[in-house]
Amino acid sequence: MKNPKPEIRNLKSLEELDLVEDVLRRALASNVELLSRASEHIIRSGGKRLRPRIVLLSYEAAGGEDLSRAVPVAAAVELLHTASLIHDDINDRSDMRRGEATVNARWGDGLALLIGDFVFVRLLNMIAAFDSRVIRVLADCCTAIVEGETLQMLHLGDIKMAEEAYLAIVTQKTASLFSACAELGGVVAGGGEQQITALKEYGLNLGIAFQIRDDTLDLVGQRDELGKPVASDLEQGKISLATLFALKSSKRASEVLFSKDAAQAIQLLRDTDALEYAMLKAREYSERAKKALSLLPGSEAKAELCRVADFVVARDL
Amino acid sequence: MKNPKPEIRNLKSLEELDLVEDVLRRALASNVELLSRASEHIIRSGGKRLRPRIVLLSYEAAGGEDLSRAVPVAAAVELLHTASLIHDDINDRSDMRRGEATVNARWGDGLALLIGDFVFVRLLNMIAAFDSRVIRVLADCCTAIVEGETLQMLHLGDIKMAEEAYLAIVTQKTASLFSACAELGGVVAGGGEQQITALKEYGLNLGIAFQIRDDTLDLVGQRDELGKPVASDLEQGKISLATLFALKSSKRASEVLFSKDAAQAIQLLRDTDALEYAMLKAREYSERAKKALSLLPGSEAKAELCRVADFVVARDL
Repeated sequence: MKNPKPEIRNLKSLEELDLVEDVLRRALASNVELLSRASEHIIRSGGKRLRPRIVLLSYEAAGGEDLSRAVPVAAAVELLHTASLIHDDINDRSDMRRGEATVNARWGDGLALLIGDFVFVRLLNMIAAFDSRVIRVLADCCTAIVEGETLQMLHLGDIKMAEEAYLAIVTQKTASLFSACAELGGVVAGGGEQQITALKEYGLNLGIAFQIRDDTLDLVGQRDELGKPVASDLEQGKISLATLFALKSSKRASEVLFSKDAAQAIQLLRDTDALEYAMLKAREYSERAKKALSLLPGSEAKAELCRVADFVVARDL
Repeated sequence: MKNPKPEIRNLKSLEELDLVEDVLRRALASNVELLSRASEHIIRSGGKRLRPRIVLLSYEAAGGEDLSRAVPVAAAVELLHTASLIHDDINDRSDMRRGEATVNARWGDGLALLIGDFVFVRLLNMIAAFDSRVIRVLADCCTAIVEGETLQMLHLGDIKMAEEAYLAIVTQKTASLFSACAELGGVVAGGGEQQITALKEYGLNLGIAFQIRDDTLDLVGQRDELGKPVASDLEQGKISLATLFALKSSKRASEVLFSKDAAQAIQLLRDTDALEYAMLKAREYSERAKKALSLLPGSEAKAELCRVADFVVARDL
């Protein structure tokens, strides 16, 4: 077994994540050399594999006994996540992710569009073997992600956005996938409907907490650890909970935040306690996630899902 | 029933195509207003619905008796085709299609990328109800399309490309979908494996004929009828059968063809009989398509599939 990735050292190592990796590698093989090279690049640059991890742990927490049965679904959610990152990076004009050149930076926007499509259509191949309930959960989640990304783009620079609108976007673009991951673990395990609902609720709150933390990391994270430039969201006019809070508390916020002077903007976010407010909210959602699990019987997997909820709000990358 | 679209006046009208339209409309509904407006725009600008037509006719030709059973699959292939056009138009920087502004011209590249993704993910929702064989055929076809589009992009301006390489790309990016349409009609009808193989063969050859005609129409079609600028492929460095033939027959071809003087380029294609050669090839594939059907029992639907094969090489748009 490979060493657990350093960034998730606080979490339990899961051998099955290596199996997920193998499924991904096979799914992305292509006779078109560029596509197989790009896929290799994508798989290698890895990431935390948080979503497959949630599928696997939810499967166990719902009483599933043969983890290998959850591996294909775990790989499918990672494919979906990866496809969506590739297209996001085009639209965000990002050139770094996880310390590596993004697909668009390396191959240009036109090929990156097709590479993202390729990763997504390989998901289609994978799901032919899934039962229709699993397909429906994945499909609804895909729709939510695209709708959320679209709303986010339409709200770029919208400093008058309500906090509810921000949360609705985060729920669609990010939390819907976390929720689907936990739900699918429960579904594949053959868990009861109440358990499955509890897992969905866990995933949804976890996803919101994750995204709020992600937004604040963009503002105050270390470039080396993040593997991407600091404050890139701000530069693009992406609104976060912290910016919304600062905009309400300080008259000069709109001027300072979007002045292109990142240091000044971040200082303002600190001065107005905006970052603290965002992290308070993130922790609230993380607590809700853990609470949702109370319906499940005690297990090592359930305890680990709680650790994941702690991890997403404490992580540095 | 609506009037049959004028451009397909030589083909039989199929009431079920209106049902396909309804399924598409329902599939593309969204709470995100922009996505529902864009979808409305896409459905309204229509097209010939050639691919759903082939699904329906193949279903009947393989002995299917309840056409409504083939309607969801017919709608699915049109969704897939539409999603792929939206992304193609971004990469080709096209601003007109079917006489209307393209999605990218109207909403910009960033939103067009998401709108294309949206159309594609709605396909995922639709297929949850399909059986696994149908999903597999669609999935393989999606992979072929993306691989073909990628190869085409990698071969832009490649004047040394072999005719076989051109045909391989056409097979992947275009003919694979026509082939899947005919195959799926047979599969949904519960046709025998020999019949299904014959239908696949029909679709594959039909698709190659269609694309060769499409490429020549780009060169010599009327702008008003095409609804897009003439010779746009040439301008982008897209290689066609006619350009490959001209390149082999005339030393000055590479200079003239990519000189940005479309009139001169087209004159050269006429002088070298390149267009005639391409259309000869297109008719060959069209004949092969019809011949593949000989295995099927005589029926009105089979006769209509033959008319479709004649239509694709004779059409003006």
